[in-house]
Amino acid sequence: VSGGRQAIVTLLTDFGTRDGYVAEMKARVLERAREATLVDITHQVPPGDVMAAQYLLSRAWHRFPAGTVHLAVVDPGVGTDRRALAGESSGHFFVGPDNGLFSFTGEGRWVDLLEPRGNAPGLAHPGGAVSATFHGRDVFAPAAGALAAGEKLSSLGREVNEPRRAPLPAPRVVGGEWVGEVIYVDRFGTLVTNLTRAVDRDAGVRIGKVEVKPLRRTFGDVPSGDLVAFIGSGETVEIAVRDGSAAERLGVGCGARVTSTR
Amino acid sequence: VSGGRQAIVTLLTDFGTRDGYVAEMKARVLERAREATLVDITHQVPPGDVMAAQYLLSRAWHRFPAGTVHLAVVDPGVGTDRRALAGESSGHFFVGPDNGLFSFTGEGRWVDLLEPRGNAPGLAHPGGAVSATFHGRDVFAPAAGALAAGEKLSSLGREVNEPRRAPLPAPRVVGGEWVGEVIYVDRFGTLVTNLTRAVDRDAGVRIGKVEVKPLRRTFGDVPSGDLVAFIGSGETVEIAVRDGSAAERLGVGCGARVTSTR
Amino acid sequence: VSGGRQAIVTLLTDFGTRDGYVAEMKARVLERAREATLVDITHQVPPGDVMAAQYLLSRAWHRFPAGTVHLAVVDPGVGTDRRALAGESSGHFFVGPDNGLFSFTGEGRWVDLLEPRGNAPGLAHPGGAVSATFHGRDVFAPAAGALAAGEKLSSLGREVNEPRRAPLPAPRVVGGEWVGEVIYVDRFGTLVTNLTRAVDRDAGVRIGKVEVKPLRRTFGDVPSGDLVAFIGSGETVEIAVRDGSAAERLGVGCGARVTSTR
Repeated sequence: VSGGRQAIVTLLTDFGTRDGYVAEMKARVLERAREATLVDITHQVPPGDVMAAQYLLSRAWHRFPAGTVHLAVVDPGVGTDRRALAGESSGHFFVGPDNGLFSFTGEGRWVDLLEPRGNAPGLAHPGGAVSATFHGRDVFAPAAGALAAGEKLSSLGREVNEPRRAPLPAPRVVGGEWVGEVIYVDRFGTLVTNLTRAVDRDAGVRIGKVEVKPLRRTFGDVPSGDLVAFIGSGETVEIAVRDGSAAERLGVGCGARVTSTR
Repeated sequence: VSGGRQAIVTLLTDFGTRDGYVAEMKARVLERAREATLVDITHQVPPGDVMAAQYLLSRAWHRFPAGTVHLAVVDPGVGTDRRALAGESSGHFFVGPDNGLFSFTGEGRWVDLLEPRGNAPGLAHPGGAVSATFHGRDVFAPAAGALAAGEKLSSLGREVNEPRRAPLPAPRVVGGEWVGEVIYVDRFGTLVTNLTRAVDRDAGVRIGKVEVKPLRRTFGDVPSGDLVAFIGSGETVEIAVRDGSAAERLGVGCGARVTSTR
Repeated sequence: VSGGRQAIVTLLTDFGTRDGYVAEMKARVLERAREATLVDITHQVPPGDVMAAQYLLSRAWHRFPAGTVHLAVVDPGVGTDRRALAGESSGHFFVGPDNGLFSFTGEGRWVDLLEPRGNAPGLAHPGGAVSATFHGRDVFAPAAGALAAGEKLSSLGREVNEPRRAPLPAPRVVGGEWVGEVIYVDRFGTLVTNLTRAVDRDAGVRIGKVEVKPLRRTFGDVPSGDLVAFIGSGETVEIAVRDGSAAERLGVGCGARVTSTR
């Protein structure tokens, strides 16, 4: 956060946009970092789906400039004894529950916000208590605001070991084939897999009994209504229906097995 | 709005996010307050549901710093003779239709934007007329922008009496019991009631023929799929299903009676 | 962009808000224009519906101050040989695919971002490639950021002729009548037509076998549940049901014929 400019704070939650929960979090960020730039990643993660949250954050964070604070709250364990983390890794800051959400990060330094240091500034709202059900507002957002305003990570809590790791599934090699799976389905019904550029372009991919080949450059390379596979914008193989939904067409979702010739 | 910094402007409407209505409002705010910070509370209030809007705003406004302008437009009476208000209360500004939306505010000063003072700056867009169906853009947003830019409330319209009061229902005592109701259902299907911390924790609450007791700290205190009641983040009793929807489970919504031992 | 202040950047896409695509675009805008003000118009354009996108943008753009950059990506032809445009018209900037989206603009200067000039700054993310499926992030957002930061349009690509024109349908005169159509259906189910103030207020409009007359000032002028027609906030005739949906009531959508006495 050079030259006194305050950081970008991204927000990713499963709180939806119908209620005011996200705005209450933003108020708490701005309370400490009035000049921060707020950018929503999404608030429509399926409730409690830490893996979808991890996928979305792992794609987006590195697009932002160094110093950005990523506030991610998909937190089915709120109020239990899971740790509440803030950390720094690869020049970015991450704030959220310790449930695997940050598995994609490399080496970093982490603190537990629920174990404040002796000299830590209190995070509670003046006159307010920390609720047991909304750490997004009462614990994580104030910490994100503090980091955006340039406070030191070490001032926010006791240093702890690295976050819980529950990484997204990786493709395996089985009998000369790549065996992967669908790891995300986007709003268009496109199936995002974990298979990489290593697959054979001509052989394409197989999902269930369906072969989709060869890999194309873009969905515009097939007629409207056709299945198509290509290297998507997240750098893995995606299976789509041009002007339609591959998830509906194939009747599959996350976890569906996808294979390819090596 | 100290030191020349422009205010935060929150926005709450029932305009949805599919159309460009909210963006047209934001353009009008920025026209007058180019440096304002815009924060959406929600735009998905059920169409015309002033009570839901009031609940959401009453929870969120005080989380923002003093000087914030709250622009709230759930306005089924647009174009009729309802007043168009801007006001100041508890150090915050409120702008919107006079239909009960601001019932939660305390003492304040209010003006009617449709009765401009002799020396009032015109609110209309250069060359544009005030539409009869979109005061959000043509009346309220310019007023919010003016306030965010530091213009005086009194310059925006004729001083009027306090806003129409149609407060959210309060719990009553009947035969030694607290009798309240569901006042909001959130995106998770959690039933937000108007019962306060005054209820007996061990006795919990009754809704229909179902008892939910004792009050817990958080939904993580019960197994997945179980009903649970707790003091929620809005400081009232909420009834939820862990990893599910209490509204669906119990088949109830706003207005459903909830009781508890006093 | 006077005085070094960076521009407003509006965003309009069909990417939805569930995934992180829009945030990835915003990261790329902020990379070049850290102080830009981002305003979402909508991200819920029906997938690939260039006409709906054009309608929404044509209503909203002129509400923003001169110098605003409008980044609009509804792009069913991404990765094919359609041009990728940035342009200036009426003091505003427009960035997006060349598929008719900008038909409403007047005279302007346009460049093709896919035909960089010899001295053009590269748009690719450091170390990143331009994907064939997400020009929103890899081509258009960086260009919008460059314009917001004050870079010259001419530096972004080779100058080209005017954009493809596929204007919204205009009303015709047939046998002494105005013949128009529904050009947009909003979130309330209100039917927005292309008929203008030129229609006879007393005669109202006919849609299918239904007459709606006379034109009213606002939907509050009829009882709840009644059909009503009025000059809407986009300055054309709209047909609504007060507290309901005209699209559902009449069973019609875009393209439905609407007539009126001249």
